[in-house]
Amino acid sequence: MDKRPIGIFDSGVGGMTVLAEIKKRFPNEDLIYLGDTKNFPYGDKSRETIIKLATKCAGFLISQDVKLIVIACGTATSQALEELKKIYKVPIVGIITPTIINIKRNTNPSKETRVGVIATEGTIRSNKWEEELLQEIENVKVFNKACPLLAPMAEQGWTTNNVAKEAIKEYMKPFIDKKLDKIILGCTHYPLFKELIQKELGNDVEIINTGEKIADYLEEYLVNEDIENSKNHDGECSYYLTDTECNFIQVASRLLQDKEIRNNIQKMNIE
Amino acid sequence: MDKRPIGIFDSGVGGMTVLAEIKKRFPNEDLIYLGDTKNFPYGDKSRETIIKLATKCAGFLISQDVKLIVIACGTATSQALEELKKIYKVPIVGIITPTIINIKRNTNPSKETRVGVIATEGTIRSNKWEEELLQEIENVKVFNKACPLLAPMAEQGWTTNNVAKEAIKEYMKPFIDKKLDKIILGCTHYPLFKELIQKELGNDVEIINTGEKIADYLEEYLVNEDIENSKNHDGECSYYLTDTECNFIQVASRLLQDKEIRNNIQKMNIE
Repeated sequence: MDKRPIGIFDSGVGGMTVLAEIKKRFPNEDLIYLGDTKNFPYGDKSRETIIKLATKCAGFLISQDVKLIVIACGTATSQALEELKKIYKVPIVGIITPTIINIKRNTNPSKETRVGVIATEGTIRSNKWEEELLQEIENVKVFNKACPLLAPMAEQGWTTNNVAKEAIKEYMKPFIDKKLDKIILGCTHYPLFKELIQKELGNDVEIINTGEKIADYLEEYLVNEDIENSKNHDGECSYYLTDTECNFIQVASRLLQDKEIRNNIQKMNIE
Repeated sequence: MDKRPIGIFDSGVGGMTVLAEIKKRFPNEDLIYLGDTKNFPYGDKSRETIIKLATKCAGFLISQDVKLIVIACGTATSQALEELKKIYKVPIVGIITPTIINIKRNTNPSKETRVGVIATEGTIRSNKWEEELLQEIENVKVFNKACPLLAPMAEQGWTTNNVAKEAIKEYMKPFIDKKLDKIILGCTHYPLFKELIQKELGNDVEIINTGEKIADYLEEYLVNEDIENSKNHDGECSYYLTDTECNFIQVASRLLQDKEIRNNIQKMNIE
């Protein structure tokens, strides 16, 4: 047993889609969320900058004595996970490995699997998803598409209005004739657009919310390492933002259906 | 007479709306354009970061021996112009002063003037436009609105599609019942959406393209200072980008109606 909290960080509100899945699945765990809203967006920053920012985020969570860090950010996972593992001893998990494990378990190597990947510019440019998919999954075909406007739209709370609808229509165009089996939401903001994406691609395409796959992964990991919190403990969440002038509360309240979230947010400076 | 070029910089392709006006009005001047596409967007970066980046941009243009620098970027003007003037001796003009001069000449102080300002988050937060308007224009009422998605949309080349239409509709909503006389496009990317904005606000609202006001300002300035280039010289433009993986060529070619622009672009590093 390990009573210490799980730390989760993202550039903004996107990682809350991951927190929501973890909170649902692990009601006994304490969670600490850090949204680096001051430095949002990570999506188009250079690799060096992402590594610097992610190092500071992880450093803050470690100062809060977390037992495990979840990088709930596609860009930070693809650009900085390996560097962070070199710097810190605490276990760190990103959004790619748990997703690849899930796909590996649920595909038939004798049949071609056609996978779409949507993510930020930085993530697509890093080519990490395609590399991992080609390395780990037999008989896979990958189609990438950068969607640079989606994370900024989500941060602004535009996830269901007409602008969001038209943007999803535009970004999904290249996939329409690709007969996809699955599409990976390679940025943690994107589950906020899940219904719109499903509508555009049709119900035959499995939409992969990486937050769910991280929760699956943690389920095994916490048991195997024997670091679960007590079954008698009611887990609590605390939220830290590097800039509070943002739509975090609005989006987060909707995701967690928790109107009290406002009272649990603290501002902090990671620089 | 001064044969040296005029330097112009922006975070991306937006400043090309200013270059287009200057090029049209001063066919004898050589122009050097620097688009800091690697660090785009400036709009949501901190003041310190903007000052650092703008200092490097201006420094590069000075190394090219320019006679004058135009900050063709709303965010850099509002956050860094005063700092740059302290550092460099070369004359520097931003997008605010020429616009305020124009409004001052074209308003009647005995009648209320209702002015809308749209710009990036950083510019609106700086409150520079409202401060200058209240200080310089009598009997003025100012309405501000940050439009954080417009510059990223323009960089992506989305200025006339359905996403752009819906975004403009959404951002113009707060102005609909404000009986505006004028609206200032406080970010140099926004003239790319001019028709959509005019359609939304109606033809009675004057849309102020700051590039035109800068050209007016330079017309007087170059003559007064006697630093025009020779009337016999055919002005040339050179373009420098800090990252060439962007839609610069596509947007710039449309703006200048010049298909040859691709051949005049050089990549350079300002760090």
